[in-house]
Amino acid sequence: MRTRLFSFLTMLTAAGAILAGTPKYIFYYIGDGMGMGQVMAAEAYNRTVLGNDDHLLMMQFPVASTLTTYSASSPVTDSAAAGTALSTGNKTNNGMLGMTPDSAEVVSVAKTLFDDGFGVGLVTSVAPDDATPGAFYTHVPKRSMYYEIGKDAAACGYDFIAGSNLRGIKDKKGNPTDLMKYFVENNVAVVRGTDALETIDSRRVVLLNTDSINTGNIGYTIDSIPGVLTLPVMTEACLRHLQKNGRDRFFMMVEGGNIDHASHANDGATVIKETLNFQEALKVAYDFYLAHPDETLIVVTADHETGGMGLGNNTVGYNLRLKYIDYQKMSKSAFSRYCKSLMRDRRVYRWEDMEEYLTDNFGFWKFVPVTQEQTAKLKEDFERCLVLRNGKDKKTLYDNFDEFSQTVFDIMDKATGLGWTTNGHSGGLVPVYAIGVGAEKFASFNDNTDIPKIILDIVEGK
Amino acid sequence: MRTRLFSFLTMLTAAGAILAGTPKYIFYYIGDGMGMGQVMAAEAYNRTVLGNDDHLLMMQFPVASTLTTYSASSPVTDSAAAGTALSTGNKTNNGMLGMTPDSAEVVSVAKTLFDDGFGVGLVTSVAPDDATPGAFYTHVPKRSMYYEIGKDAAACGYDFIAGSNLRGIKDKKGNPTDLMKYFVENNVAVVRGTDALETIDSRRVVLLNTDSINTGNIGYTIDSIPGVLTLPVMTEACLRHLQKNGRDRFFMMVEGGNIDHASHANDGATVIKETLNFQEALKVAYDFYLAHPDETLIVVTADHETGGMGLGNNTVGYNLRLKYIDYQKMSKSAFSRYCKSLMRDRRVYRWEDMEEYLTDNFGFWKFVPVTQEQTAKLKEDFERCLVLRNGKDKKTLYDNFDEFSQTVFDIMDKATGLGWTTNGHSGGLVPVYAIGVGAEKFASFNDNTDIPKIILDIVEGK
Repeated sequence: MRTRLFSFLTMLTAAGAILAGTPKYIFYYIGDGMGMGQVMAAEAYNRTVLGNDDHLLMMQFPVASTLTTYSASSPVTDSAAAGTALSTGNKTNNGMLGMTPDSAEVVSVAKTLFDDGFGVGLVTSVAPDDATPGAFYTHVPKRSMYYEIGKDAAACGYDFIAGSNLRGIKDKKGNPTDLMKYFVENNVAVVRGTDALETIDSRRVVLLNTDSINTGNIGYTIDSIPGVLTLPVMTEACLRHLQKNGRDRFFMMVEGGNIDHASHANDGATVIKETLNFQEALKVAYDFYLAHPDETLIVVTADHETGGMGLGNNTVGYNLRLKYIDYQKMSKSAFSRYCKSLMRDRRVYRWEDMEEYLTDNFGFWKFVPVTQEQTAKLKEDFERCLVLRNGKDKKTLYDNFDEFSQTVFDIMDKATGLGWTTNGHSGGLVPVYAIGVGAEKFASFNDNTDIPKIILDIVEGK
Repeated sequence: MRTRLFSFLTMLTAAGAILAGTPKYIFYYIGDGMGMGQVMAAEAYNRTVLGNDDHLLMMQFPVASTLTTYSASSPVTDSAAAGTALSTGNKTNNGMLGMTPDSAEVVSVAKTLFDDGFGVGLVTSVAPDDATPGAFYTHVPKRSMYYEIGKDAAACGYDFIAGSNLRGIKDKKGNPTDLMKYFVENNVAVVRGTDALETIDSRRVVLLNTDSINTGNIGYTIDSIPGVLTLPVMTEACLRHLQKNGRDRFFMMVEGGNIDHASHANDGATVIKETLNFQEALKVAYDFYLAHPDETLIVVTADHETGGMGLGNNTVGYNLRLKYIDYQKMSKSAFSRYCKSLMRDRRVYRWEDMEEYLTDNFGFWKFVPVTQEQTAKLKEDFERCLVLRNGKDKKTLYDNFDEFSQTVFDIMDKATGLGWTTNGHSGGLVPVYAIGVGAEKFASFNDNTDIPKIILDIVEGK
């Protein structure tokens, strides 16, 4: 039946291909965990709080479609199986990277294009050996095999890889490994920070963060950590490097990895700020597109939804109060680290101090309404968790939150109207946005395995 | 900026229009409350439980886009403001129908086409004087003005209107009103059930349900109430009637209203069955399209998301177990009515009886895993709520659930992996699917106000 249904689109596509040629510059943006809720929360904040009439940049693209994300092993994918689907067009089991369920290695769109003479750059706000970037160059049965993934990064030949840190430089006990020698052998300059980048004259570069609170990501936008890399800066650096290498055709993958981390934490304000930061990074590609509209393709999608994020709860009813987002000055991760430091240091810290901290950093009472009942619970949890140190931590994929932080963020959610169904991934639909040469080919309902195939079809002029 | 971004699509559209002409037959399907979660839950069930390789019918359409739904008064719309946007292209305040916020009447796409000689039919699984169908013919400041809405239905001139019941035939005290005389004056045959329809020779028909447990909807698909109308049957009846009237051009609106009711109830199995039933109703239009591909346009969308429905929770982790859906034999509404009847009749009813009932109607213990802890809670709530009659009801928009029913459905959710953020609407994105003449015009990111304007543009060959 599908063949028949698609007939008119095929017709249009044929017309489009004749008119538009094939792309020389391909930008593939992946918002990790950026489901429909994340997108719509950022869009609603952009419209109602920032007062922007224009949609988010990606939503202005002429094609705005959707994607299924399930893996070979589950209706709810992890980032490894999702990355493999988005990079190679193959479903695999959760946890596996660049392989089918029976461990056959499969080739990514980046590698195919690289072998065809395209320059390749991979950029992420999390670790460059994490599942999503890894899916574009590695083949391992377990996504946690950072040493092996690092070796594949060294050997892949790509022009540019950027992110927080290579986790394979230490083993599980924290001792250094010999991973770096493979980068040296392959003439890859591994540098920290963009300043160092200026002085390097190497075709191949791995750009890592100057510093990072944890090596798994570059730090959240909302925490404004001084001196750390940002996704837009890394994206620009990647583009410059590909141009410096004289690449007249290139493929760039840019991952907004922190959207996923913040969604695992069920931290709405941080999700919104990361999604907007992802738009800033997207602007780098869009400006390039404007200069080369007939030779560029930009595709934006996500690997899965995280958190089951919804825009409505029983407290706010038929409303949302996203203006409260702006009173949150730090991520849930940063706040929980602060609470844990209080416990660890056994600092003298009274409820009145915490009240002031919550007003300063979350606008509680002064701007964000907190009911008497909620205040009583905050105070009770403060005593039990932070003074008596009798709270119960909640472990998520990337964090371990103290119980008092949970209480604070529950109140934030009740105030803003955001809601969550899980601390893990969900099986929800994710968006696809496209502009440029061949963009119309993404207008139908897609599966994640379709995207790299469509990209290659467009490059081949099919 | 939008103008520039849309240039290539305009180009394609121009090509499409030249090739395809303008549509004579327009089908406008609205899944009430059918957000991305509802769609993906039905799709995942269709694939993993029913074993269908093909996507749901609407997802096979060549255009699969998205829609923002916020109203003039809120980021979370109600069905009245959403219906007004989808029918007239104007944002209004929640609660208002066919009017702008300053009470200026605005004209629906149905009325514009009707005045241009199109036959018009409106079909819904809820009441035909409810917000979504009402938005296509009425102008009232409050959606609950059923008597006035009914008068507008009588006067609108449309060929066919179908649904559960006209609520304006009784006043708020339950006494009969004179509403029916307006239908008589306007030569509208008001009939109950399709059998009666066969014997009628009237250009204008209102088809109501033979019977309904409550007049607000025709009853849920999952409850298989004998003899009641179904959405596919009403849709077919509408199409036949338009053809019987000799209409060589027509506009049909078909609403899956029960998707919303089930989502308000946070009743996952019922949502999935209603969404599949909506696909059955869509098949009526699709079969017509196959016979008239060059003259037909089908657009499927939703007025808003309901429930903040997510496909994942912390119990199932990275999984979903939608196979348990099939063990649920009745809606939450029907189960709660059963529980209330037990309380009302003060029937002798032991925990052992309830255990058997839960196994028969929800597969508990036998097929659907129920932990010891959950069993203890069920037993405790049974005693407290149904025996001591000391439970606390939960009121949602269309129901008032007893507490024991809540406990049962919480266990179902934990087992299947479905989750919810609210009992009301959410501000989430909803889908747009389109096929036929001009379908490509819906491929960009849409606002709800765009849809009727695009339909009219397509009809006018713009």
